[in-house]
Amino acid sequence: MQRIINDPDMVVEDMLKGFVKTHNDLVTTTENSRVIKYKNAPVKGKVGVVTGGGSGHKPAFIGYVGKNMVDAAAVGEIFSSPTAKAFYDAFKEADSGEGVACLYGNYAGDNMNVKIAIKMAQKDGITVKTVVANDDVASSPKDEVEKRRGVAGEILMWKVGGAKAAKGGDLDEVIAAAQKAIDNTRSVGIGLTPCTIPAVGKPNFEIEKGKMEVGIGHHGEPGIFVSELKTAKEMAKIMCDTIIPDLPFGYEDEVVVVLSGLGATPVMELYILYDDIENILKENNIRVYRSYVGNYFTSLEMMGATLTMMKLDDELKELIDEEVNTMGLKQFKE
Amino acid sequence: MQRIINDPDMVVEDMLKGFVKTHNDLVTTTENSRVIKYKNAPVKGKVGVVTGGGSGHKPAFIGYVGKNMVDAAAVGEIFSSPTAKAFYDAFKEADSGEGVACLYGNYAGDNMNVKIAIKMAQKDGITVKTVVANDDVASSPKDEVEKRRGVAGEILMWKVGGAKAAKGGDLDEVIAAAQKAIDNTRSVGIGLTPCTIPAVGKPNFEIEKGKMEVGIGHHGEPGIFVSELKTAKEMAKIMCDTIIPDLPFGYEDEVVVVLSGLGATPVMELYILYDDIENILKENNIRVYRSYVGNYFTSLEMMGATLTMMKLDDELKELIDEEVNTMGLKQFKE
Repeated sequence: MQRIINDPDMVVEDMLKGFVKTHNDLVTTTENSRVIKYKNAPVKGKVGVVTGGGSGHKPAFIGYVGKNMVDAAAVGEIFSSPTAKAFYDAFKEADSGEGVACLYGNYAGDNMNVKIAIKMAQKDGITVKTVVANDDVASSPKDEVEKRRGVAGEILMWKVGGAKAAKGGDLDEVIAAAQKAIDNTRSVGIGLTPCTIPAVGKPNFEIEKGKMEVGIGHHGEPGIFVSELKTAKEMAKIMCDTIIPDLPFGYEDEVVVVLSGLGATPVMELYILYDDIENILKENNIRVYRSYVGNYFTSLEMMGATLTMMKLDDELKELIDEEVNTMGLKQFKE
Repeated sequence: MQRIINDPDMVVEDMLKGFVKTHNDLVTTTENSRVIKYKNAPVKGKVGVVTGGGSGHKPAFIGYVGKNMVDAAAVGEIFSSPTAKAFYDAFKEADSGEGVACLYGNYAGDNMNVKIAIKMAQKDGITVKTVVANDDVASSPKDEVEKRRGVAGEILMWKVGGAKAAKGGDLDEVIAAAQKAIDNTRSVGIGLTPCTIPAVGKPNFEIEKGKMEVGIGHHGEPGIFVSELKTAKEMAKIMCDTIIPDLPFGYEDEVVVVLSGLGATPVMELYILYDDIENILKENNIRVYRSYVGNYFTSLEMMGATLTMMKLDDELKELIDEEVNTMGLKQFKE
């Protein structure tokens, strides 16, 4: 393991210390060392937005805590769910009395812990409603979308839900906007190398050299198929062919595209892939309203990329355009 | 090579297409396919800021083209200098009649091509003055600072020079500010893995597993020493011990810190390293005014990090605080 760490069992604690020091203009620690909050949270009169998930996906999840996005995030160990207590404490940090929208990804541990946390919060009189991201097309067939996992589409869910809350939406409106965002979003990933959890010390899955795995999950969950490593253009076609018919995205639709690296793929290669993707979208008369290309949702030092697309309507456009200031996403009106 | 590319010989062309499509709110192509400019350049009444360098260092160099930073960048092949013609065309794209500050890194090819380009520009009546970044402490002893290479300190030079130009500084004032920035800046890198130029297909240098190379350059130039892979805390100490005495940074100095990953090191690990670095600075009564932690100046898929520190005065603080909007650096006043 060629790693810059101290104790492999303490990487999350050690990372959080550096993260908060670097971004002290945006975030602060809380009494629970596994909850990071926006420095101005709870924001008076605003619905609180909470997320949480395993570590190792930087900027997700804590990198999206800040102005007009996530108010508090529960932090799990590498690739594992935060505790119910962490979600509960995040709800408390985010709630200004207007209720909390918990916007998270569809994984067994997160589902269970969020459920428990909501019951704990109810006793305190905090109303929590949820949206569960399930944008990963490769993780289950279309007739079982409720079984699909959440991946980089979560970023658009947080962006939209956070903007709706910032604009004064009530809890039901924030939930409705975030739900619409994820319902309109599809993602697929391609993995080129595995990654190694520091405390384990070796990859918990393999991708042979010269091969790639289409549909791989953010934790190495098996994909749809393994093939010879293809060109960027061929990868773009496979990705588009997987997600375009699934929603489906169609003629003259306007979309937001997120093309995220998985950690170790040079950003140069993401731009190469993005060019091929935008060409295919153009051929399909799908118009890119805005694109984000970079390391937005990663898996440690995995090589590869995820393509995420969200179909827009007027409300989603307005919410995507809203200002945001977080470590992972900065967007300001000039 | 687990790569997302099409033709290995065309990675720069293919990358530029995707880059410009993604960031069309900030940059545009020019008649020279190897020159990218800020969409509003030349900015009337403002000194033009130009840089350039080899590709593979994303966000550097084109990622810093935008508002209040770089007006035009000349783009080279992977790890090699742009042509003199590209620098010359970048000067023309950036010049509004107020002259051009060419702020670049100290490499033989860049020095030669900038020199030729300046002569070409003189014939057109364009005044170009230069600052040559030499922040890499490991690349030459202190009594030969003029031989040192430029590394991630260039970002601070562009930030400061770009802000001075945006605030209405004339060419000599922009040059003086950028020169002060780099004179007050020191960097050192530690490499954990080599990287592979796509067109070559195999690493052009080696770092054994379990080892690290202190002082390695951005293209694998040999460092000061190779050692067993150490903990983040030990790496932080080596880095600080290398750059603090060199300037020297001293008691009650205020500094900007850039801790950049080299490409494939997970950002999580950069925060772990940053925490240890800030602890050492605190012990030395050096105060961090602002820190940037992330992939700011990379070398393809190399693992490792560079630490850069700039000592501040009132002018540098004001210029560092100025708004900026580029792909690589976004900073807005709220």
